[in-house]
Amino acid sequence: MRLVTFQQNGRPRIGIQTEEGIIDLSIAAPDLPKDMLSFLQAGDTAMKEARALENASVHHSINDVHLQCPITVPPMMLAIGLNYRLHAEETGSALPKVPLVFTKQQTCANGPFDDIHAPPESALLDYEGELGIVIGKKCRRVKKSEAEDYIAGYCIVNDVSLRDWQSRGAPASFTMGKSWDTHGPMGPGIVTKEEVGDPHQLQLKTWVNGELRQNSNTNDLIFNCFDIIEFISTALTLQPGTVIPTGTPSGVAAAMKPPAWLVPGDIVKIEIEKLGHIENKVIAEPV
Amino acid sequence: MRLVTFQQNGRPRIGIQTEEGIIDLSIAAPDLPKDMLSFLQAGDTAMKEARALENASVHHSINDVHLQCPITVPPMMLAIGLNYRLHAEETGSALPKVPLVFTKQQTCANGPFDDIHAPPESALLDYEGELGIVIGKKCRRVKKSEAEDYIAGYCIVNDVSLRDWQSRGAPASFTMGKSWDTHGPMGPGIVTKEEVGDPHQLQLKTWVNGELRQNSNTNDLIFNCFDIIEFISTALTLQPGTVIPTGTPSGVAAAMKPPAWLVPGDIVKIEIEKLGHIENKVIAEPV
Repeated sequence: MRLVTFQQNGRPRIGIQTEEGIIDLSIAAPDLPKDMLSFLQAGDTAMKEARALENASVHHSINDVHLQCPITVPPMMLAIGLNYRLHAEETGSALPKVPLVFTKQQTCANGPFDDIHAPPESALLDYEGELGIVIGKKCRRVKKSEAEDYIAGYCIVNDVSLRDWQSRGAPASFTMGKSWDTHGPMGPGIVTKEEVGDPHQLQLKTWVNGELRQNSNTNDLIFNCFDIIEFISTALTLQPGTVIPTGTPSGVAAAMKPPAWLVPGDIVKIEIEKLGHIENKVIAEPV
Repeated sequence: MRLVTFQQNGRPRIGIQTEEGIIDLSIAAPDLPKDMLSFLQAGDTAMKEARALENASVHHSINDVHLQCPITVPPMMLAIGLNYRLHAEETGSALPKVPLVFTKQQTCANGPFDDIHAPPESALLDYEGELGIVIGKKCRRVKKSEAEDYIAGYCIVNDVSLRDWQSRGAPASFTMGKSWDTHGPMGPGIVTKEEVGDPHQLQLKTWVNGELRQNSNTNDLIFNCFDIIEFISTALTLQPGTVIPTGTPSGVAAAMKPPAWLVPGDIVKIEIEKLGHIENKVIAEPV
């Protein structure tokens, strides 16, 4: 089941996207919460009620709605660095011994087809195609063998990065390099875990203006989704709606010779097997 | 004016703390939002309405209520590292050229008088007494000369840290070292900016079991509150309720010879001029 957040006639709603279009949950199940975060917080009962409607008639054609960030304001975005072997090598870094966790701020969350801002303060704008875990249930100190129980589903994340701001200061400040407004496009929806099956066998591809830049598989992850949940939840209580971008494979702009930074007009498309694709245009930020 | 969040008969409320006790805003101004985050989001109008009640009769004695974290779930906690000259020196670090911004997760927020958990996964538990800025209005690309307009007030923050987790991995992961559940005690309330006046002339003291460990003044900040807001808001939109702990002065446990890590039973008290004090007991985390 692919859960989506969309805007129709200017009002935000949630729904189920099928081959035929969108089942509008505000019509099909008016008792369910109206936004994705509250829906996830409502737990198994809400998920079960939605699943029972998977074969209902659609209310909207996909062309009539504007898909939004599945979780408009994620409570937390805990991201992993250097988590594909080839990407760690291309950045000249040693393979990490533990997951390298940094934070994207909730304010950078952006829609799956909305514009990415190129701010005037940096010219080193980069993309990072990533598999994102969406947490479905509150949890702390989860063993990796039970981690899947706490996952609602998965989405695509573009962990957009400004490389100069990321490496300003010592130690490097991932917080300041990876959380500019609009720098967290996500979606197109949340594909629930039972539909994804094994999250560690998914092809991931990123194109810039049609040129294939990243082409890898989540089977190359150094720390897999369940390792990551075990590690982070040792320290803190994960909340429903927390998004965990799991790291990017090789092929980022910074590693090209010469680096091929994103510039206004560029189109970045990221596709992950079973999850669909997101596609964002880079524009000069209106300041 | 000192705004507080408190629990009375098991229900969370907001109020104004005076010398005499607490003016309960749910009684004195029933139309105002019932929680601090919504109150701050309501902006100047709500703040003005509260201020008009500053001399009203109190509803509760301070001993009858349990003060809670002023903002139960802060949307973001953006913290600054190595921001006092002497603390940068005691850690053996060069003085930073730009503010070193890292993130504490919203899940670590804790009350001003609640327990700090010493988890079994680390023995290197440390305190950091800090002045916290509370953002009052949404803002982006704010000049330092106008930064004060966007501040609601100030509070004390204990940026509790697990030094081994903080330095695990390369680069060091502030996210994993500084966001364990309960590791963000804050309060006792939010003292509004007009009552604080100049935030860069405040004495800050931290005691552990009555022994004075930190004794400094915010006039030693390398980047002051307004510099920090200008820097962070270059990248991202600060939201009402965002808390910015501005860094800690010298005197942390890690820098003592030998290091005097916090252990269960210890009492950490932090006092900042004009803001009052917070006091938290360390207990072994019940796992």
